Amino acid sequence: MNRVCELFGIEHPVISGGMVWCSGWRLASAVSLNGGLGLLGAGSMHPDNLRHHIRCCKEALKAGAPGNTTGRDLPFGVNVPLLYPQIDELMGILVEEGVKIVFTSAGSPKKWTPYLKEHGITVVHVVSSSVFAKKCEEAGVDAIVAEGFEAGGHNGREETTTLCLIPAVRQATTLPLIAAGGIALKCQIKACEALGAEGVQIGTRFALSAESSAHDNFKNHCLGMPEGGTKLLLKKLAPARLAQGSEFTATVAQMEENGASKEELAAYLGKGRARKGIFDGDINEGEIEIGQICSMVTKIETVEEIFRDLINEKGRHP
Amino acid sequence: MNRVCELFGIEHPVISGGMVWCSGWRLASAVSLNGGLGLLGAGSMHPDNLRHHIRCCKEALKAGAPGNTTGRDLPFGVNVPLLYPQIDELMGILVEEGVKIVFTSAGSPKKWTPYLKEHGITVVHVVSSSVFAKKCEEAGVDAIVAEGFEAGGHNGREETTTLCLIPAVRQATTLPLIAAGGIALKCQIKACEALGAEGVQIGTRFALSAESSAHDNFKNHCLGMPEGGTKLLLKKLAPARLAQGSEFTATVAQMEENGASKEELAAYLGKGRARKGIFDGDINEGEIEIGQICSMVTKIETVEEIFRDLINEKGRHP
Repeated sequence: MNRVCELFGIEHPVISGGMVWCSGWRLASAVSLNGGLGLLGAGSMHPDNLRHHIRCCKEALKAGAPGNTTGRDLPFGVNVPLLYPQIDELMGILVEEGVKIVFTSAGSPKKWTPYLKEHGITVVHVVSSSVFAKKCEEAGVDAIVAEGFEAGGHNGREETTTLCLIPAVRQATTLPLIAAGGIALKCQIKACEALGAEGVQIGTRFALSAESSAHDNFKNHCLGMPEGGTKLLLKKLAPARLAQGSEFTATVAQMEENGASKEELAAYLGKGRARKGIFDGDINEGEIEIGQICSMVTKIETVEEIFRDLINEKGRHP
Repeated sequence: MNRVCELFGIEHPVISGGMVWCSGWRLASAVSLNGGLGLLGAGSMHPDNLRHHIRCCKEALKAGAPGNTTGRDLPFGVNVPLLYPQIDELMGILVEEGVKIVFTSAGSPKKWTPYLKEHGITVVHVVSSSVFAKKCEEAGVDAIVAEGFEAGGHNGREETTTLCLIPAVRQATTLPLIAAGGIALKCQIKACEALGAEGVQIGTRFALSAESSAHDNFKNHCLGMPEGGTKLLLKKLAPARLAQGSEFTATVAQMEENGASKEELAAYLGKGRARKGIFDGDINEGEIEIGQICSMVTKIETVEEIFRDLINEKGRHP
């Protein structure tokens, strides 16, 4: 039992990332039912849709619901990217619906942490540097996720890898620390513990799980990619790790090599690319956000199978 | 006692990288005298100069030499980048001088491994992917260094981080495996062991040690840089991790943002930049090759102090 388990009331310090177009109630509840903490990814949900997912997730995690033999309601959380357009409305919904755990990302922890804390919500903020980790501590968050360069989707400008980031953040703050970025295997969980993390947030492996809302085209495209199959691109806008083998990715890479401006990139990016790639399964026209470790995730598994592998002493450990 | 210690006949599975303009006989012998394996960096040495360093290193490591109380000659190795211009002459010197351990990098392991093995030399090759690790096995090398994206200087095109690379290479080969890239602290050694490595190659921390041949300007510039203070640049030529705060680095970064061609970059790079930056200490005009973890190396220490910190149970561990 460590501080991360205590903070959330969970058995295993394994959290599923709140990934756009992947992390709906099916994935989040499956993770919590297996003793971890499941997150809903609000970033890709309209406010009404978020409310629907929160309610479905709660229903699935109620004491006595199928799979919940713990005798108590199991916890779940919501990930909120702070650049969400209707952020006020969204924060209101979290409070109204009695959400107890919120992970915030992509913004300053100072603006919303006090509001959430006043409503009794546990707040965790995602950072990519120890400078931001200190800001989180000042803002009064309860725990920190430190996410390295190998993570999929949106990513820090510092390009600090998980191996370098975790000891730096560990040194900068005494808060409970959750490692993210490049973690899909049991041996990587052990490595992050050695670095000073007390828990892990896993994205890619759960994004490619059976319960992920992502399209099968997306999952099959990402499974077992060659090493080097993802690249950090769109650095002039907001850096994002994207999978190759897509026309969109190839075009962005070529534009960047040719010195395309921020405005040119934004115009080509347009809107709705992540939905198109991840949810609609349009590999060529969509944005395929996935982490570097997809090279070692080779099949679609259920969340239960993944937990068995990660937690069991005989789990996959090269 | 693990396979890496057995292979080299050393006490601790800690190897100092053969870094250009840093890894002369002073650094290499100090590392071996402290129970690790010191490497000479042939990449920045003319053949005659390499011969001189080999002889000085041997002298310092002889049974009975100051600091060597083991009663036997201590081992050391030479790192050879295979794109070295006078490579035939250099290989001849290694054999003539009775060098027993050679680390090769930046090229195919197939060409020189048989020659070195025929002369009874232990051969280790540096890779940045599991595909190349398999090629090493086929070529008959004795061990592999797998080096991640966070490493200083020349770097792989795949941008795979150490956290993602080590389990992949561990799965691809049964050879003794040494992790490199982003390792400067004891907790990072432990993390790499959890990932399946049996030893570590440390660059940055030794490059900034008292015994490193690098100029003090270089050491002081790199010590305790902010996170994000290094960047992987020159990707259109051969990717290299460089420190910021140098006019050269800033110009390269700007040229790349503007879409400069390979030829334009090569023309600006010219020759002798690494020597200028690292050995002559010209921060503005020189190439400042250093790893990401320089942010956590905050002072110039002797190799003995570094080993005390890395090996001691009370060593620095956030």
